[in-house]
Amino acid sequence: MPTRIRKALITAAGPQQRRLPLQSLTDRDGATKPALAIILDEMFAAGIESVGLVLAPGDRPAYESVLAPFADRLVFLEQSSPNGYGHAVLCGREFVGTESFLLQVSDHLYVSRVEKSCTQQLLDLSATEGCAISAVQATHESQLRFYGTVSGTLMPGHAGIYQVDRVIEKPTPTVAEQQCVVPGLRSGHYLCFFGMHVLTRKVFALLADAAAAVPAEKLGLTPALNQLAAREKYLAVEIAGRRADLEAPFGLLRAQISLGLHGAAREEVLALLTEELALDSSRR
Amino acid sequence: MPTRIRKALITAAGPQQRRLPLQSLTDRDGATKPALAIILDEMFAAGIESVGLVLAPGDRPAYESVLAPFADRLVFLEQSSPNGYGHAVLCGREFVGTESFLLQVSDHLYVSRVEKSCTQQLLDLSATEGCAISAVQATHESQLRFYGTVSGTLMPGHAGIYQVDRVIEKPTPTVAEQQCVVPGLRSGHYLCFFGMHVLTRKVFALLADAAAAVPAEKLGLTPALNQLAAREKYLAVEIAGRRADLEAPFGLLRAQISLGLHGAAREEVLALLTEELALDSSRR
Repeated sequence: MPTRIRKALITAAGPQQRRLPLQSLTDRDGATKPALAIILDEMFAAGIESVGLVLAPGDRPAYESVLAPFADRLVFLEQSSPNGYGHAVLCGREFVGTESFLLQVSDHLYVSRVEKSCTQQLLDLSATEGCAISAVQATHESQLRFYGTVSGTLMPGHAGIYQVDRVIEKPTPTVAEQQCVVPGLRSGHYLCFFGMHVLTRKVFALLADAAAAVPAEKLGLTPALNQLAAREKYLAVEIAGRRADLEAPFGLLRAQISLGLHGAAREEVLALLTEELALDSSRR
Repeated sequence: MPTRIRKALITAAGPQQRRLPLQSLTDRDGATKPALAIILDEMFAAGIESVGLVLAPGDRPAYESVLAPFADRLVFLEQSSPNGYGHAVLCGREFVGTESFLLQVSDHLYVSRVEKSCTQQLLDLSATEGCAISAVQATHESQLRFYGTVSGTLMPGHAGIYQVDRVIEKPTPTVAEQQCVVPGLRSGHYLCFFGMHVLTRKVFALLADAAAAVPAEKLGLTPALNQLAAREKYLAVEIAGRRADLEAPFGLLRAQISLGLHGAAREEVLALLTEELALDSSRR
């Protein structure tokens, strides 16, 4: 059943990331705004009508003042204690209600290499498939320790779209080689989460069950997605674009360069980079 | 009379710049912190003991929370209305008292190309000369519209140190050619302010007189400095380093690249830049 996704959840409550989404970047159109505003612009342009933003206690005033232009489409949600990413998602249950929803992290920027934004690519597929879909990126095994990893099979006749069999959080290369090999990918590459999902309401029930079973533990999202794969049609799609992790060393720098080189001021940014490199080599 | 400078004023109340100094950058040692913290680190390392930060009304909570590590050496001052840069400086009069003081803007970062920071270079000269000194940079006439510009004469036997005769705010190239030519500079280049000064208490009296004379007008700093040049020994010094204007288009990007290429992670930043450029050319 095709689904139009109207609501999105963005998590911004992780202890490392609390201020990152508020950092200014110059977007592809040359406007300087908080990283999170670039994410929100993309969501609203892709048809999202309302966004729930999950924050750590005390962070709301800073976000509210910076995101004032989005006030009427933004709902602030609080994760009262740092109980893991799955718990942060669960904080959006009431806001989302019974619909399927878009889920994104706040500390990554997505730079599409095609006309459609990364969010739009995912939502367009969701509109025709009407099931849970995770955006993934073929990722070298040296990076597996950072990501949830998917095993599955290519959907016949659909390049870059996979039926998900299982999801494993941060597998070792050995585990990945045994359980996550996806035919058709380059050797040593696996399908890793991109930080962007369309999920069904079922995921909230799975998360709530997990939280009730082991209340003291940090709640991950990956185990719930692994259970989801066993119960529902669940796809993964390779996105034509890249993720820039703002939390990585020089992550903001890399994100800005990537946005700049894909944007209207491309020539200016190329000139700036070559100028700085030339200035640098003249110092030596 | 030699002077040890103990107090500094930083202005951060300009309408365009109010959030810029709070943006995160990775400093030369690889620590990620607000741009203003990088400026404060340099000041305290150069012997400054106490900093007065001039803010626009309402901005104090945001600055306070981000600058908590400096709380005991920071005094928050408010510029109640946006009456110009000279007025912002005048807001620091009571905090500074009768001593000479360091004055810096908050929306520029200074990247030294020698061991000593730019602030240290200026304060070291102040320690031997004991007079007002403005840091300047030889600047092409195409950039004159952004800066206060100094005319003067080279101090015999002191490379890069000038006796200031007059100061003109943002002169046209024609005015500069008539009034600001400094022997020894490359043709078409002038001594423009770097955004960093050591000033004497006299400047407050001059600013207060100007404010009283025309209370309705925006109060600039440059006219007061021009009067100072007529009354006191006033030097300008060329700093071995560059200013990165955070407010300029892609200013944060340029500042980050410059910090990165001059820092401990130089090789990593070079690799990142060449990687992004290679990735970009492979897309074409």
